[in-house]
Amino acid sequence: MLPGFFTRVFAVLVGREGRSLHLKAAGGATIVLVLVMLAGSWAVVTAEQGARHANLTSYPKALWWSIETATTVGYGDFFPVTPWGRVVGAVVMVVGITTYGMVTAALATWFVGREDRRRGRAHQLREETVQALHARFDQLERLLTGERGGDR
Amino acid sequence: MLPGFFTRVFAVLVGREGRSLHLKAAGGATIVLVLVMLAGSWAVVTAEQGARHANLTSYPKALWWSIETATTVGYGDFFPVTPWGRVVGAVVMVVGITTYGMVTAALATWFVGREDRRRGRAHQLREETVQALHARFDQLERLLTGERGGDR
Amino acid sequence: MLPGFFTRVFAVLVGREGRSLHLKAAGGATIVLVLVMLAGSWAVVTAEQGARHANLTSYPKALWWSIETATTVGYGDFFPVTPWGRVVGAVVMVVGITTYGMVTAALATWFVGREDRRRGRAHQLREETVQALHARFDQLERLLTGERGGDR
Amino acid sequence: MLPGFFTRVFAVLVGREGRSLHLKAAGGATIVLVLVMLAGSWAVVTAEQGARHANLTSYPKALWWSIETATTVGYGDFFPVTPWGRVVGAVVMVVGITTYGMVTAALATWFVGREDRRRGRAHQLREETVQALHARFDQLERLLTGERGGDR
Repeated sequence: MLPGFFTRVFAVLVGREGRSLHLKAAGGATIVLVLVMLAGSWAVVTAEQGARHANLTSYPKALWWSIETATTVGYGDFFPVTPWGRVVGAVVMVVGITTYGMVTAALATWFVGREDRRRGRAHQLREETVQALHARFDQLERLLTGERGGDR
Repeated sequence: MLPGFFTRVFAVLVGREGRSLHLKAAGGATIVLVLVMLAGSWAVVTAEQGARHANLTSYPKALWWSIETATTVGYGDFFPVTPWGRVVGAVVMVVGITTYGMVTAALATWFVGREDRRRGRAHQLREETVQALHARFDQLERLLTGERGGDR
Repeated sequence: MLPGFFTRVFAVLVGREGRSLHLKAAGGATIVLVLVMLAGSWAVVTAEQGARHANLTSYPKALWWSIETATTVGYGDFFPVTPWGRVVGAVVMVVGITTYGMVTAALATWFVGREDRRRGRAHQLREETVQALHARFDQLERLLTGERGGDR
Repeated sequence: MLPGFFTRVFAVLVGREGRSLHLKAAGGATIVLVLVMLAGSWAVVTAEQGARHANLTSYPKALWWSIETATTVGYGDFFPVTPWGRVVGAVVMVVGITTYGMVTAALATWFVGREDRRRGRAHQLREETVQALHARFDQLERLLTGERGGDR
């Protein structure tokens, strides 16, 4: 529902270090997802307790529910029936989808980086390419200065 | 169903300003999704009203339905049974999926940009790199012109 | 199930022209998806006809089923119960997911292109940058050749 | 649930060769997914055997279940009811989602590469661009050295 918000929060939490953000993001999001699923399993049982027609009545059932909810499979064998149970469900869904989006985006970034390196190491070459050109200028200036000296 | 169309519409609506389109797109799509879910919750209850076997009979139920529909979880505890209710459902599904696609694409763009900057600021360097080369040419021309003057 | 295969087929079908492949791919995949959904709605009703417990018994129901299948929502209000009906369902699922993957990938490509242009038009500048450097060389050579002529 | 882990394992298994990782990854993941679905269909029937209310009681049913699980459609016509059956289900879900993430990421990488080539073959041009500049330097040095020789 609010993936933009979670993305922003995530950027603030993980984005301040500099090395391969995408790998950290995919790993961090996976950890967050597991924690949300564990906490959600507990929270949904608490929320559903005593509700009529509640089917999320034990922790193992709730853990299975959190798995099929985070992956958006949603068989319908278990689902929350109370307002707070549904809030928990919405959080598990959104965190699950955002995590998979992050993993997909991290894979894309990794693939693109590999392709860039395979196609002639464009970015890595540039620095030494530029230095080689400057070396040629140095040589020309030495030639020109030496020549001038020889004229005197 | 028609994500290509929505993408085009979106491009026309948000794409005309120039600064970090992907962040604006992910944020804008999230806002559109929330509005579509709220409007869809209202619309589906109106559409289903009085239908036999209708289960989307109140706004809170419909809001929960719109959440599980937009995230494509679809437990099957609630679903539209009338033609117009199903049109509303289709819109919520397509907007939901397109939004998550946009968030994923925005994350990928953000990751790729970070990687580019980490790998030697390729794009930012180029302008000053080129200016440095021109400065070397200026110096060579000064040397050559000065030399010629000295020859006379 | 076989998205790699479909991707390959798609590349052969659409990839031979050169202009903005990603936009064509997202548009083309959307068209293919709509056609597959329409054909699948017809095929699944034909396949399910006369089966015990069949619930996909009319075209409007089947069209709604194809929408919730292609978007992977899957409420469970309708589903195929015969082998051929399930083959049709599998095709609709795979085409649906591959299409949304293509739309997401096209959005990412579009975002990345926009970011590249925003950050100093790296690719477009290069050609004129190189031409400017060659112009400087021309100037130096003119200076050197003129000087040599003057020495005689 | 653990896509980050699977991604890492995948990188170790497939990433050590150098040519178009993204195409190999999408293809390899598709193969892995088909194998996991076939193995999962067998494993879930074995796990569910004899359980009360078990509905995954035959291989054809289980294969259909693995398709709707891997694509995250989850109609709810079939689902595991035993702990081990649910573990199998969780594996099929995670492998399915990770595979589709990989296909999406591979498509994005392919699109980005096509766009790069379309926009003036930036990466391929660079090597010959640099060689052209070095040829100009060679010419200048020949001019300067020849001139010096002529002065003596």
